[in-house]
Order: sequence, then structure tokens, then C-alpha cells
Amino acid sequence: MRVGLIGYGYWGPNLARALNQTDGLDFVACCDVNPKNLRSAMRAYPQLNGFSSPAEMWDSVDAVVIATPICTHFHAAQAALRHGKHVLVEKPLAHSSVLAEELVHQAERSGLILMTGHTFIYSPPVVKIKELIDSGALGDIHYISLSRVNLGLYQKDVDVIWDLAVHDFSILLYWLEAMPVWGRSFGRACVQENKNDVAFIWLEYLSGIVAAIEVSWLSPQKLRRTSLIGSKRMIVYDDADPCEKVKLYDRGVVLTPPQSFGEFQLTYTMGDMVAPHVSTREPLLLEVEHFIECVRQGRQPHTNGAFGLQVVQTLELVTANSGQIRAVGRAEEGSIAA
Amino acid sequence: MRVGLIGYGYWGPNLARALNQTDGLDFVACCDVNPKNLRSAMRAYPQLNGFSSPAEMWDSVDAVVIATPICTHFHAAQAALRHGKHVLVEKPLAHSSVLAEELVHQAERSGLILMTGHTFIYSPPVVKIKELIDSGALGDIHYISLSRVNLGLYQKDVDVIWDLAVHDFSILLYWLEAMPVWGRSFGRACVQENKNDVAFIWLEYLSGIVAAIEVSWLSPQKLRRTSLIGSKRMIVYDDADPCEKVKLYDRGVVLTPPQSFGEFQLTYTMGDMVAPHVSTREPLLLEVEHFIECVRQGRQPHTNGAFGLQVVQTLELVTANSGQIRAVGRAEEGSIAA
Amino acid sequence: MRVGLIGYGYWGPNLARALNQTDGLDFVACCDVNPKNLRSAMRAYPQLNGFSSPAEMWDSVDAVVIATPICTHFHAAQAALRHGKHVLVEKPLAHSSVLAEELVHQAERSGLILMTGHTFIYSPPVVKIKELIDSGALGDIHYISLSRVNLGLYQKDVDVIWDLAVHDFSILLYWLEAMPVWGRSFGRACVQENKNDVAFIWLEYLSGIVAAIEVSWLSPQKLRRTSLIGSKRMIVYDDADPCEKVKLYDRGVVLTPPQSFGEFQLTYTMGDMVAPHVSTREPLLLEVEHFIECVRQGRQPHTNGAFGLQVVQTLELVTANSGQIRAVGRAEEGSIAA
Amino acid sequence: MRVGLIGYGYWGPNLARALNQTDGLDFVACCDVNPKNLRSAMRAYPQLNGFSSPAEMWDSVDAVVIATPICTHFHAAQAALRHGKHVLVEKPLAHSSVLAEELVHQAERSGLILMTGHTFIYSPPVVKIKELIDSGALGDIHYISLSRVNLGLYQKDVDVIWDLAVHDFSILLYWLEAMPVWGRSFGRACVQENKNDVAFIWLEYLSGIVAAIEVSWLSPQKLRRTSLIGSKRMIVYDDADPCEKVKLYDRGVVLTPPQSFGEFQLTYTMGDMVAPHVSTREPLLLEVEHFIECVRQGRQPHTNGAFGLQVVQTLELVTANSGQIRAVGRAEEGSIAA
Repeated sequence: MRVGLIGYGYWGPNLARALNQTDGLDFVACCDVNPKNLRSAMRAYPQLNGFSSPAEMWDSVDAVVIATPICTHFHAAQAALRHGKHVLVEKPLAHSSVLAEELVHQAERSGLILMTGHTFIYSPPVVKIKELIDSGALGDIHYISLSRVNLGLYQKDVDVIWDLAVHDFSILLYWLEAMPVWGRSFGRACVQENKNDVAFIWLEYLSGIVAAIEVSWLSPQKLRRTSLIGSKRMIVYDDADPCEKVKLYDRGVVLTPPQSFGEFQLTYTMGDMVAPHVSTREPLLLEVEHFIECVRQGRQPHTNGAFGLQVVQTLELVTANSGQIRAVGRAEEGSIAA
Repeated sequence: MRVGLIGYGYWGPNLARALNQTDGLDFVACCDVNPKNLRSAMRAYPQLNGFSSPAEMWDSVDAVVIATPICTHFHAAQAALRHGKHVLVEKPLAHSSVLAEELVHQAERSGLILMTGHTFIYSPPVVKIKELIDSGALGDIHYISLSRVNLGLYQKDVDVIWDLAVHDFSILLYWLEAMPVWGRSFGRACVQENKNDVAFIWLEYLSGIVAAIEVSWLSPQKLRRTSLIGSKRMIVYDDADPCEKVKLYDRGVVLTPPQSFGEFQLTYTMGDMVAPHVSTREPLLLEVEHFIECVRQGRQPHTNGAFGLQVVQTLELVTANSGQIRAVGRAEEGSIAA
Repeated sequence: MRVGLIGYGYWGPNLARALNQTDGLDFVACCDVNPKNLRSAMRAYPQLNGFSSPAEMWDSVDAVVIATPICTHFHAAQAALRHGKHVLVEKPLAHSSVLAEELVHQAERSGLILMTGHTFIYSPPVVKIKELIDSGALGDIHYISLSRVNLGLYQKDVDVIWDLAVHDFSILLYWLEAMPVWGRSFGRACVQENKNDVAFIWLEYLSGIVAAIEVSWLSPQKLRRTSLIGSKRMIVYDDADPCEKVKLYDRGVVLTPPQSFGEFQLTYTMGDMVAPHVSTREPLLLEVEHFIECVRQGRQPHTNGAFGLQVVQTLELVTANSGQIRAVGRAEEGSIAA
Repeated sequence: MRVGLIGYGYWGPNLARALNQTDGLDFVACCDVNPKNLRSAMRAYPQLNGFSSPAEMWDSVDAVVIATPICTHFHAAQAALRHGKHVLVEKPLAHSSVLAEELVHQAERSGLILMTGHTFIYSPPVVKIKELIDSGALGDIHYISLSRVNLGLYQKDVDVIWDLAVHDFSILLYWLEAMPVWGRSFGRACVQENKNDVAFIWLEYLSGIVAAIEVSWLSPQKLRRTSLIGSKRMIVYDDADPCEKVKLYDRGVVLTPPQSFGEFQLTYTMGDMVAPHVSTREPLLLEVEHFIECVRQGRQPHTNGAFGLQVVQTLELVTANSGQIRAVGRAEEGSIAA
């Protein structure tokens, strides 16, 4: 399978490295409208054919990986699918759900693989937590709280929700296998006009689970901290911890009915904490391997077009319901079906 | 000055210890309706006169400290003021702003000291941050994010907002010297019916500052983490860190206008971090000392009745605007004047 | 049982609090040569009879707790035993092994309880690790590394080994149930003449286990970190961690013999980490309870006189073999029988 | 300048990446006796000429980087110098000080650059600490304590001292600009016969400074922790901390002479902690840049042959004086001139 990379700007070099290290594919081509980026790619990977536009590349490849600015995802992916190429497109799938849905339909009609690069779904700690949830170890999930903050890096074309919360939306979708039925965001454009660099998000699911997300480009410390609070056990997932990213706490609070008459009693469980061993393989490599495997075997990726579409729908849901008192339309609330 | 303690249940023993250690007062009396609590107090402090109701205690004391359940704060404080006693009442001042306001008026009319026990306002790290803010070290504050979560301890008569977020509201009022103009909360009653044990709160101030608070009784780890993000510098205040509670980061993002034509540039500042030395004196002792000093000198405490009233108003603001989709009245929003 | 406290200086107030909180004893008397200390004790515990010398106290008590300077431990304990009193003496038991041995013999002859206040032996994390060792969870222990450093607090009459390493010696004796067969120390008197404020200690046991200890009064951060490296599993015990003091790692390195011919292979085990739930009860209370129980039941405490003697012998062993090039007697090495 | 790499085994790939990223040189050749390694190098860097022995490579290069097993350093470097090539050889310079000295002389006679790859001397935190020491910020250094432990990685031909403590010796030499006058080690071969996988080292300097080092391949957690205790200030350098590697504490203990008569008083300083901003540039790149610059300008590298020789002498000093009771020759002590 011959694979070409479209876009060698900020994130493209990481995908190039992953493509170059993965077995079962030939990394043969790269295209970038910026000649400087293209030269840089070809110096690092002398075997590549370089192109200044995707149109010149179609004959050379069987599949493409798209790492261009978000607003161009749709057109690049659409063109690739039209030319019969399998597509792995960086997240989010497109800058609107209408366009994302169009890509999903096009991939379905053509029988091609369309995968969205939600890397965290291939991250061993996130997969381990999915297994723990599915095993019933947590009991019923009460709530999930997620913090993803650091200093920079500002994106040119999107705000902090589309840049950072997109990860949390994909993780929640993967873990809960459900869309939120209600969502709302609150934030502030601190440094640049009209572009939120800090945001807080609330989500509610049909099951009653609530989730809260904090994302920021303006934090002096890097936090990647997620708590999952279940009726039986609790998890703290700290992706910034080099060693023990997942901690499972055998802790909880149980409401015991009164024995004869009297008050309900609260009982605390204070058991062990276990940090399960989690593979340290790089998620990006696992993502690219999964793409290659899905193309070869003709099966749907975990983060296929439909998955990517649901993430874009969540982004739109919370963006529409923004909570600042001064923002137009603050009071309007929306909900979408699960 | 003879001081009596009303209530020797959960928190009373801490206040008793502080009263016993503080110079300039005679800790002479204690009253509790529960005979077991009263016996316990008198065993620990044999010098005390014990009473089963406040009414019996008025002749023995010049000032009282009230540590009873929240819904009884008003009546206990009102009675004490009527009998001409100075009052230090645990936070919140009362379980409604109408009642809190009544206490403020009564104290004003009588010329007695009414102080609310917002202990954090006497905590050296909180005071140090106030100094840093006032010195201009942070520049303009963009946003403040606060997390206050742990496992338990459930309160009988209030939810997690009235139990934990009350601290954050007092700290924000002290730092910003302003009331939020808009507020909203979102939470869930996970273990007990109708009593939120996790809540998320958003606040907005006239200056444009936004604040987000997370409070929970259902977290496996104890977090006491507050970030203040300013245009010049940033602070992380971690009250659970035994050594370096306050960290001042000389970091930021500056938007530079284009030199000739072109785009605005974002420049990052990456300077030193300073953890200023902060006294390790116990806030509760400092609070009691402040009360005694204010009574002696006839001056208003930092957390006087008016301060306590504003905290209760904030509690009511965010409780009224609760965000769950299933809660009655979710969509109604309110705002109060600063 | 009537108990008296001898010495209300630096550590005495902690023991007084523990005696006051423990059931099954009457805390009736205190003696201190310093009138200011004595007044302070009697203000805090008005029920006490105060004495300026132990000689006046014997009639009032059945047992004594001794918290005087180290060089006076022997005389105070000897006098108490002579007057038929059970004795709990602060660690170390005495300032020389000859004197410590004399106390052990005297207690044996008199049938009285003699206990040394090695508090760590009653600390739940230390006890949990003892259980893990005895269960075979670690396999064979390869080595133990211990760090106990902080800023201050200087002792008047002893150096940092006698002040801090005494804890580590007691813990090693409890865990390994063996005396070191070889020991050596290296240190420096940085601030005060002739009194080491930093020291490093090496110990070797008959089983082949080696141990290394670092103690310092001159460290900007407080460290209480102990690693136990076994052939099957490893433990990190961090007493300064407020939540997870004991971490058991299912990690190790195994040397596999060659299958046909060739080299031995090293295989790494990388399993889960478990932080077992450990009680948070205060060690000092557990120590005092143990003393009372042993007196009542006439059985030997875990840290009886013989245990305390072995700790003093270890202190002497490493002090004798000090490693500084400029110190007199550096090159002499010694060993004592286990 | 044409540069060739000798050895593409464990560490060689890192040096290859650094050579490929550095300006001012042509990375033109690689040699490795193992054909598999050589193929791997040429696939990653297709521009390279590949050789199976250094002898074939001399005509193609002006300088070489040597990353072969330690016992071959001497012969590879000697041959390169004889053929007039500048040499950057991985640490340690050679497996004996006699051989290391021979290389130093040979480089001197030939006027070629001989540099030892002591990477830490090019690490920004280590350089920052050197500046702080030289500025007098610490006052007189009392002692330095260094821990460098992790799980694996076992070296084939050397023990843990030659593998890990070599870093600490180079750092101490750089900071203190002095050799230890006395040294001693203590360790254990836990997994493999006759090869220590844990070791503790004591060093003493003419100035009175003492240093203690702990190195281990058998630790469940990775520690890279160094404390420098000075009379005025203290530093904790934690190379495993992703953000704040260097912390400067304005803390100390001062011995004040008695004012009239009486005892000396100890006064504690408890000031701020500052974590200076430190560049995050990769040390290996800085090392390679320094080598290229020194070759171009004909000046001595910081870690030239003489520096590398002194590190080997320290390795020999502490290896000779090993402290295990069962080891032959334990009691013999040695000292070398500063």
C-alpha cells in the first residue's frame, strides 16, 4: 500500500515519522503548498516524491493522511475519496457537521476507509480505562471531570474548544458510547479578540452521567487530569504522569437504608489503589497501524467517519450554547438526540 | 474578655482548641444541647462552665463563638446580639440572605462585632496572593479556576456548594473585592436524593474576569488547587502542598501588533517561577486572634457581617441558577447587582 | 493504672496529649526540673500533680513515661525501675549500650515492663511493610535505601545519627529481625563544631542484604523515603506522602539461564503497582496503647528493652566506624555479632 | 567537515540523530561490525556510506564520533587520532586511566580535538547550577547528595558505577573544579554474579565538601535527584521533573555567637524558593554543536581528554575502595592527589 501525506506543517512531521516507522506500507509521497515545508519533508525522507498540490499526487498513492488546517479537511478528504483513496484525516473530521456527514456518506458509497485521527482512542491508558468501565469495575458512573490545560499552543483557525476539548469529546464518546443530550460552554477570549483561549464545558448524558471539562491555552502548568467517579470505584487518569497514568481507587460512598427506623447511613469504602501496568507504546504509531490494518482488511476503524461526525456534533452543541453573559445568544439552550 | 462556645459537635472542638490557645481572652463556657458533646468538652477543658442551652450562658460571657448546624446560625447569633454579646459565627453567616441581612442590621444598630468564620481569609497563602494581586504583579486577571474536592465529609443539612464552594466564594470576594454579576451551577446528587455531592460553578464579574469552581465530596484524591491567570503573571495555589503552596509564574502570552503589515504575533514569556515564603501559622488561630482584636479595638473584622452576607448572596445566586437538564427551572438565569 | 510523665520540654507535650487521649490509664502526674515547662503542662492538663523532681513522684504513679534529654534516660529509667515503676522511655534507650544493657537486666530482674519509644514500629505503614516482607511478597531482599532529611531540628546533646538514623535502625531491626554485621558512617559537621548535621550510613547483614541511610538536618525539602528492593517485588515507602505512603511494585529483573548455549538473559517484570490501604491512626497513640496493654497483660512490648539495646548497639557500631578522611580513627573497621 | 559515526548499537542512533540535525557538518559515514546495525543506520540515513570497520572509513571523514562498547573506546580513538581525525568519544573515555592518559597525550601531540561525551555538562540545568555556584549564591558548599536510580538498563561490559555514577562524577568535576581526595564505594551484585547493580559512593574534597551518590539499576521509580547544600542557599536539581528541574531555596542555618555569654544560637533562614527558567534544548544536540565548534575554532572542549581522564580516575578510585565486608580488599583505602 502506497501512502501519501498531505500537509507537512505543525503536525505533519509527527505523522511522517509514524508512517516511516510503520510496517506494511510504503510512505512514498508528500504534498504541501508551502515550498519550505515540502523541502523540509524531502530532506528528512529523501525517498519521498514531493508535490505542491494533492491533485498531482493521486496517481502515486493508494491512501492519504491529511494534516492540513482544519477548514481544509473537508475539501482534501472529499477530493481523496473521489479519486478512490482511503483517508486518514486529522481531527476534527471537518469544520462543520454538515460537511462531516457528507464525507461519511461519500465514504460509505465508495466503500473506502475514512478514519479520523482521534489519537487518544489508541492511547493505552484510555483503552485500559475503557476495559475497566466495560468490566463493571467502576459500577455506575456518577460523573467525569476532565482538565486539559497548558501554556499555548494557539491555533490559527480554531478556538481552544476545537483544539483541545475535541480530545475529551472523543474520549467520552469512546468510553460512554453515547452522545451528550445537553451541553453548554463558558469561556473567555483573553488574549485574542473573538477566540476563546480558556473554556469550561458541561455535558449531560441520558444515563444521568454528567461531565465537566476545563481547557486552556493559558495555564502555567500542564495538566492532563481526568477523574471518573463510579458507584463502586474511582479512577484518576493523569496523562502527564510519566509512570502511573491510571490509578484505580477502591473507594466510594454507599447509602445504607436504615435497619429499623431512623436515618439512612453513609458508609465509606477505603480500599487499595491499583495502578495497572499500561503499555508505553506511542499512540500515534498505534493509530497509523490501525489505519493500515483496517484498509487491508476492509473493516471500519474505531474512529471512523461516523465517530468523527459525532465529535463534530458535540463541538457544535457546546459552541452554540456558550455561557458568557455578554455573548449573544447566551440564554438559548439546545439539546440534540443521543 | 470572657468567651463562650456554642456547639461542640463536628467543628466546635477545633474552635475550642483555638480559643484555649489564644491570649487575651478567657475561654469560660460551652453549651451544647447534646449532653454527650458537652461532657466531651468539659473533659477536655475542665475550666469550662457547661450549659445545655445558650439562654443559660449569657450572664457568663462577653462574646460567643457559634459552631452549630447552619440552619441554626441565625437564631443563635440573633439571640447573642440581643443579649449584647459580640459574635463570631461559623460560615455561612445564615441559611438565607434575608436572615443574614437581618443579622448585619442588628449588629450595626447595637454596635457589636459580628464576624463570620471564613477561615481562609486568614490563611497566609490567601493573604499573600491578595498582596500579589494588589501589587499589580499579575497584571489584569483573565480568569480563576478553583478545584476543591475530596472523599466526604457529607454535611447533614447542606449540599456540597454550601459546604465547600462557600470557601471559594469568600476567597474570590476577598481577592476581587467584587460580587459576580452572573453565576450558574451544574451538579448531580449521586449518592443521596436531592443533595448535590458534586457541583461545577461558573461566575462572571463586571471587570470581565471569569471564574470556574469544581467542588465534590466524591473524589478519591484531595485537591485544593486554584489557578489565577493574569495578563502579566500566573499563580498556582495548591493548599494541599505541604511546602510550596503559592507558585508565581513569570509566564504569559502577549499579542504584539504587526510591525509593518501582516498578522498580530503571539509572544510567550517563559520566566522564572517563585514560591514566596509563606507563614505556616494556623489560619484558625489567626481568625480567633483577629476576632479578639476587633472586639477589643471596636473595629470591623475583614469578614464582618456584610462580607458574610455577600457570600450567602453568591450561594443563592448559583443555587438558583442550577444547570441540570432535569432540574426544574434550569433555563432561568438571574443576575444580581455588584 | 496511674501514669506520670517525666519531662515536658520538646517532645513531652506530644506524649502528654497521647496519654490524655488514651483509655485505660489515669494521667495523674508530671515532673520537670524547669518550672516554666511544668507550669505549661499544668495549664494544659489541670488535673495533673506537678513535681520538680522524679523522686517526689514515685508514690503517685504506677508507671512513668520518660521524655528527658538522652543523656538522662539511663538515670531516670533506673530510678523508676528501682521504685517498681513500669517504664516507657523515649528513644534511644540510653546514651551507651553498656547502660542500656544494665536497664534491660534490671527490668528482667524486677519483672517490670521496660519499653523504648520507637514510635515508627507502631506506624501502620511500617507494620504493613513488615507483613508484606513476612508474606514473601518481595522474595529475597536485595537492598534497602533510606532517606530522612529535613531542615532542622538540631538536638542539643546528640548528632544527626543519634537523632534521625535511630528511626531507621529501629525500622530495619523490626523488618529484618537481625542486627547488621558490618556498619560504617560518613558525614560532616557543617554548622556546629564536632556535631555531624549530615551523615551517610552503610550496613551489611549476614543474609547479604545491604542498607544505605542518608540523614540530614540541612535539607531544604523534607524527605522520608525508603525503597525495599526484592527479587520478586519492590516497595517505595514515602512517609511524607499524605495519601499513598506504601507502594508495592510488581517489578523486577530475572536472570534466565541460557536455553541451549549462549548468554544468560535478563528479563524485566513490569506489572501493576498497588498502594494498599493503610490506617491513618496516629503512631504515638498506638505506641502508648501498646505500652498500657503490655503492662496490664504482663507481656513484652515489641520495642522492649532488648530491642532498644540493639538499636543503641547499631548507633555505636556506625559511630565508631566513621568515614571522614580527617576524622581520627577513620580507617578502623569493626563488626559485631548479630 | 565530514563526520563519521563508529557504532550504531544502543546509543549510536541517538548520536546519529544529533549529527543529522546539526548545522555545520556533513554526516557522511557510519561503520559497525554488526551488519544488522549497519543496515539499520543506512535505512534511516540513506545518504551515509556504510563500512564494516573503521579502517575503511578514514579517507571519507575529518572527524569521528565513537559509540562502541566501553572496552573498545581506547583502540577506536587511538586509531582515529593516528589517522589525523578529531574525536568525540562516548563516556567514559577509556576503561582504564592509563589508556585514557595515553589518548590525552596523543591528542596533545597531534593537535587534534579529543572530546569525551559527558552529555550532562551540556545540559542547561547543570550549566545553570554551575553559574549559581560561581556567583556565590550558595555560599560555601557543605555537601552534595546525588541519586540516579531506575529499573535497568543493564550494560554488558560494565557495572552500575561505570554506567551511571560516571555522570555524577563528571557533574561534580564540572561544578567543583576539583578531584576528590578520598573516595569509597559500597554495593551489591544482586542479579548477576560479580557485577554490582546497586552502589553507594562517598567522596571527600580538599575543601571539606563531601558528596554521596546512590546509583541503581534496580529501582521501581526513576530518580534523578541532586541536592546541593550551601551555607547561604540550597539547590534541589530534579532532572526527572518535566518543568522545574532546578529549585533554589533561600534557606539555611546560621550559628550566631553568643551576645554576652552563653550558648551559640542556631538561626534558620526561611526565604523564597526560585525555580529559574532553564532552556529545554536537548543536551545531546548542544554537545555535538560544541564539538563541531571546537574543531572549527581549534579550542579545547569543556569535556576534553583531560576532563575525561579525571572522570576515569575517579571511577578507579571508588572501585578500588569498595566497601563490602565480603569483598577482597575491603579495608584498603586509597587516596589520590587533587
